[in-house]
Amino acid sequence: MSVKIAVLPGDGIGKEIVDEALKVLEVLNRDFALDATWEEGDIGGVGYDVAGDPYPEATQKLVKACDAVLLGAVGGPKWEPLDKPLRPEAGLLRIREDLGLFANYRPAKVHDQLLNASTLKPEVISGVDILVVRELVSGIYFGQPRGIEELPNGEKRGFNTLEYKTSEIQRIARKAFEAARLRSNKVCSIDKANVLESTEYWREVVTELHAAEYADVELSHMYVDNAAMQLIRNPKQFDVIVTTNMFGDILSDEASMLTGSIGMLPSASIGVDYAMYEPIHGSAPDIAGQNKANPLATILSAAMMLRFSLDRADLAEKVEQAVENALNAGIRTIDLAEGGDFVSCSGMGDAICKEL
Amino acid sequence: MSVKIAVLPGDGIGKEIVDEALKVLEVLNRDFALDATWEEGDIGGVGYDVAGDPYPEATQKLVKACDAVLLGAVGGPKWEPLDKPLRPEAGLLRIREDLGLFANYRPAKVHDQLLNASTLKPEVISGVDILVVRELVSGIYFGQPRGIEELPNGEKRGFNTLEYKTSEIQRIARKAFEAARLRSNKVCSIDKANVLESTEYWREVVTELHAAEYADVELSHMYVDNAAMQLIRNPKQFDVIVTTNMFGDILSDEASMLTGSIGMLPSASIGVDYAMYEPIHGSAPDIAGQNKANPLATILSAAMMLRFSLDRADLAEKVEQAVENALNAGIRTIDLAEGGDFVSCSGMGDAICKEL
Ligand SMILES: CC(C)[C@H](C(=O)O)[C@@H](O)C(=O)O
Ligand SMILES: CC(C)[C@H](C(=O)O)[C@@H](O)C(=O)O
Repeated sequence: MSVKIAVLPGDGIGKEIVDEALKVLEVLNRDFALDATWEEGDIGGVGYDVAGDPYPEATQKLVKACDAVLLGAVGGPKWEPLDKPLRPEAGLLRIREDLGLFANYRPAKVHDQLLNASTLKPEVISGVDILVVRELVSGIYFGQPRGIEELPNGEKRGFNTLEYKTSEIQRIARKAFEAARLRSNKVCSIDKANVLESTEYWREVVTELHAAEYADVELSHMYVDNAAMQLIRNPKQFDVIVTTNMFGDILSDEASMLTGSIGMLPSASIGVDYAMYEPIHGSAPDIAGQNKANPLATILSAAMMLRFSLDRADLAEKVEQAVENALNAGIRTIDLAEGGDFVSCSGMGDAICKEL
Repeated sequence: MSVKIAVLPGDGIGKEIVDEALKVLEVLNRDFALDATWEEGDIGGVGYDVAGDPYPEATQKLVKACDAVLLGAVGGPKWEPLDKPLRPEAGLLRIREDLGLFANYRPAKVHDQLLNASTLKPEVISGVDILVVRELVSGIYFGQPRGIEELPNGEKRGFNTLEYKTSEIQRIARKAFEAARLRSNKVCSIDKANVLESTEYWREVVTELHAAEYADVELSHMYVDNAAMQLIRNPKQFDVIVTTNMFGDILSDEASMLTGSIGMLPSASIGVDYAMYEPIHGSAPDIAGQNKANPLATILSAAMMLRFSLDRADLAEKVEQAVENALNAGIRTIDLAEGGDFVSCSGMGDAICKEL
């Protein structure tokens, strides 16, 4: 069955890292009967440069005509002076909303070969395997009203709305419970129910859904401030974390940093009809074009795509194993090298292809 | 000059730890010409038990008649089934608002004697000395409208409002710049200006105030997700952090955990007319009444009170030095003992008094 992928390299190192993932997909096409084709589109700063829009119409059409989206990264100082709706980040928020990608999966898994890369002690993080399931198309990111307004007294006021509806909470909680069933069967829902009514309601809905349909999964609740501590104090206590858009943004980045190798971490954003895969790191404009970026997060994102969108869990495993093998063989990009030998971005891509 | 302190022990270990701080103040009264008196009041769960209100009227009167408030901790499972306005946390939020305590200072300082207590590598945290200045009486904690409502389609919706006005941002930023001048002269303002208008405006006001009045202080801006990472990756880059109520809640707890000794960390909450001092840890109901809590965070909070409210920086330094001396002498409460010898809560209080 032929599948079509929309490839959106974006800005900074986006093109380099995505190219390595495509190399891997080529090998899978050639040697493992993957029948994938792809077409590139613009997003982020590049979208603005080419079409005056960080999420150009052509890209909107393209992604809807494909089975999955593979994205590099967006953003860079070049576009910071632009008005907010024209900035690269706006393109990212719009594609999420447009495709209804409500469930953002961000695994933070420690690779034992890279234990020392973390600023945390090896015994604290060895074996850490957390999946953050972040709500991605609602909450304070999208709530109305929002803006900056003048007040009668001459001051101004900036404001945003944090809101969650029953169905929005249910659908993301469902994804978390289902993911947990395939892992260690534990969900920790993170909120600030002691202060924010929106998340008090979040806790209520998660609790009810759990009792009604997922009582076999172990559910706990934690306040976000405590979670920020517990991730550092004892990250192994967590299996699946489910939380709001804003808290998920913060906690998934915190969790990623525990692993010490943010260049290794993939993500998936999934809706009812569409899905998008991207590394969790940014566009790293400072090293763009130098062939030194770590393409593994993007290659592992492609593996998630194989599993969740292309129905090829077999190939996802092959890719993940190839990454393990390359790490075991001591192959490192500069971010992982700890002063030792390292390969280039394309060198790492080649190494993975060879392992396959 | 005689000064009067409102002492609110609160719940759980509150009474034990506050008692040790009072012991220290007694020594200062006796030997160092501090002329302090105090009166106890109820807050939190105890307030509810005694007066049906987590911030009873008698306490409201008391704190306004005093020069400073020393608080233990509030909360516990006993009061969790109560309606939100009756719960201990509501008392805490109300006293903050009632006294206009807009600036919350949370130092996260690593004591070299306790380096190993952290889950982070010693070389990463040695020398860390961060002051989080958190806005405490506005933002999403207090914004209106808020609530849980029924929607026409039968669903419900939980909602909150995040808002900041010009003057609210200015006054907290001012405190941060002023604090930085007495430290390493660096402020990092943390926001999510790329997504939230409220914090886009925050960044704008901080930037303008800096240019107009504090250009001698080094100012940087960071997104909250990146800050959650940077605190783990390289905490030494930070001096003063200034941020919103919600982000400050999360990041100050994260920062505290870097030190590995949350039982050591004091805080001050300061307004125009009033000030309150409390340890940043909670009420630890699981160990309450067992004389094992670490009173040092409360004793160091009393030191902050001496410095900021009682005009006795000389005594603040004496107390801080006494704490250092006790640590140097190897005296530890159980949370710091790493399996070695330890003293009780009152034993630690006695040790500090002896050092004085
Ligand atoms: C770039 C930004 C809008 C985005 C977010 O906050 O969601 C990013 O931080 C992320 O986590 O994907
Ligand atoms: C108990 C709670 C309401 C409070 C807060 O969120 O402000 C606490 O976490 C704190 O940081 O003092």
